[in-house]
Amino acid sequence: MDEFISLSYGSGGKKTSRLIDEILLPALSNSSLSQLGDGALLKVSEDIAFSTDSYVIDPYIFPGGNIGKLSVCGTVNDLLMCGSIPKYLSLSLIIEEGFPTEKLKEVIDSVSIMAKASGVQIVTGDTKVVDRGHGHGIFINTAGIGERVKGISYGKENIRTGDMVILSGSCGNHGVSILNAREKLIETEILSDCAVLMEAAEVMFHYGNKVRILRDPTRGGVATTLNEFTENTPYTIEIQEDKVPVDGEIRTACELLGLDPLYSANEGKFLAIVDPGIAFEAVEALRKLGICKNASVIGEVTELMPSKVLIKGVLGGRRILDKLSYDMLPRIC
Amino acid sequence: MDEFISLSYGSGGKKTSRLIDEILLPALSNSSLSQLGDGALLKVSEDIAFSTDSYVIDPYIFPGGNIGKLSVCGTVNDLLMCGSIPKYLSLSLIIEEGFPTEKLKEVIDSVSIMAKASGVQIVTGDTKVVDRGHGHGIFINTAGIGERVKGISYGKENIRTGDMVILSGSCGNHGVSILNAREKLIETEILSDCAVLMEAAEVMFHYGNKVRILRDPTRGGVATTLNEFTENTPYTIEIQEDKVPVDGEIRTACELLGLDPLYSANEGKFLAIVDPGIAFEAVEALRKLGICKNASVIGEVTELMPSKVLIKGVLGGRRILDKLSYDMLPRIC
Repeated sequence: MDEFISLSYGSGGKKTSRLIDEILLPALSNSSLSQLGDGALLKVSEDIAFSTDSYVIDPYIFPGGNIGKLSVCGTVNDLLMCGSIPKYLSLSLIIEEGFPTEKLKEVIDSVSIMAKASGVQIVTGDTKVVDRGHGHGIFINTAGIGERVKGISYGKENIRTGDMVILSGSCGNHGVSILNAREKLIETEILSDCAVLMEAAEVMFHYGNKVRILRDPTRGGVATTLNEFTENTPYTIEIQEDKVPVDGEIRTACELLGLDPLYSANEGKFLAIVDPGIAFEAVEALRKLGICKNASVIGEVTELMPSKVLIKGVLGGRRILDKLSYDMLPRIC
Repeated sequence: MDEFISLSYGSGGKKTSRLIDEILLPALSNSSLSQLGDGALLKVSEDIAFSTDSYVIDPYIFPGGNIGKLSVCGTVNDLLMCGSIPKYLSLSLIIEEGFPTEKLKEVIDSVSIMAKASGVQIVTGDTKVVDRGHGHGIFINTAGIGERVKGISYGKENIRTGDMVILSGSCGNHGVSILNAREKLIETEILSDCAVLMEAAEVMFHYGNKVRILRDPTRGGVATTLNEFTENTPYTIEIQEDKVPVDGEIRTACELLGLDPLYSANEGKFLAIVDPGIAFEAVEALRKLGICKNASVIGEVTELMPSKVLIKGVLGGRRILDKLSYDMLPRIC
């Protein structure tokens, strides 16, 4: 392999084969991928979930992860949020000409580590190289297939008055981490929360349809995801400001950087709307997992203002918490 | 919608919702996509094929198609080549800031038209916007799921001595079309062969395992795909130069542009290795379809030089036809 990726690595010819044989297959090898056909042949259950995301994060290596780790975590988490066990991923790379081969190895190693940790196989893929100045280092797309857990059917149509809102941990870390990595406004490194939610989702699967809906508040943060839950429904979500877990350093950084943790992206957290009867028990179970140690009930479902999300401040005042409507931070995932 | 796509359309907030509601859903709507969850919930048969490709073609609108048409045809064809009936696609967009909204509509309309023509549904997706100078107009990733046709198991391990090689139509059109669209070396427009191979593949499915393997010769062209068939096998593929169908205008353009049609990409053709007993019958059946009117038996499987592809010229001499090893043309798909 050359020291830098040139256009010929994306030509479909000999150099593409070398890239596959020397970097991709050694890290990701499994029986499906190794056949290198036009696609992978798989056995799955009849009920599946199918999800995709393209990752264009800048910088592609950030405190707590890199684009390879993120591209597995993101799609695996989306499949979990659908109530499915992630099984298979595709991996498609768009590399800018001149990208260092060593960095590509680093990114692919992270893909490999996270895939193993999540119990998924990378079964098919694609590599394209774009000319210098027409990409940005590396973009990655993953698509994934999960097998649906029997007896679970998440969806906002299940939400009803009295349900409670769980946030699985402190919010805003990923967005703040990326902004700080980019702008270097604060000297201390702020870690992204980028993580696979497998164990945490399994805790929730245990409660069957007493969990109404799960979703990971990535772009747009907690506020935007809560609005997606109430949009076009007769319900209101009311959250209590002082119940929303925010890490001390994130709170400080948000004040300095002019960010709102409720709109800042997360990559290792979920929101759940649940039957009130299981809310506190579920939170207790979640807290036993390292990445959910700050899991909390942050609010409830009411009918006060249909389709709206309200936040109650510590002094008792209520205000509407709208969807993200401006560019807080582009290219965070 | 604004006249041009700005970064906020990729923020996950209100503008992302507008882009989805005003452009994507009206063109692509179906019950799975409309739920806009983290993924689509699908019912499939137990044996599936799974494939992905990212499309970075330059220019994104070309004679005979655009990146939207290509991104459906390419993945649908890959699923067909696996011996499966394409059912579901994901669609993920990476748009460069400043991309004209009208062009985005045009691309998405093509996605919609080709998806309908192929009988597939776009069930899940993602939109990212990258800052100006860090992308190139629009990149698209599609991943697809197909249901395997019972009784078919394609693979190079099925190939045996005496098998025949079918090319489903004239070769080299897509690559030549794109080079000419980019460099404008020849005044007449040369059309890409970009097309869905559904009907043509169904002809081949009819012959069960008498078809050993199917593959569409995209990047690297016919020569590279034939080499993929023989690589690491004891077999040789010998093709006859005068049997390879090449359109007159492609032949002329190749001479002018310094291209070799055998290495030039195709986006609506396949190569098949088949039992000699069905080869000519299959070609007759293929020729009844418009896009396969030039289908031909172009060679056979021998054991003359293990793992190599040989081409016999009209004067009888044989030479080795290697894999593509240099950059004939970057970003053709």
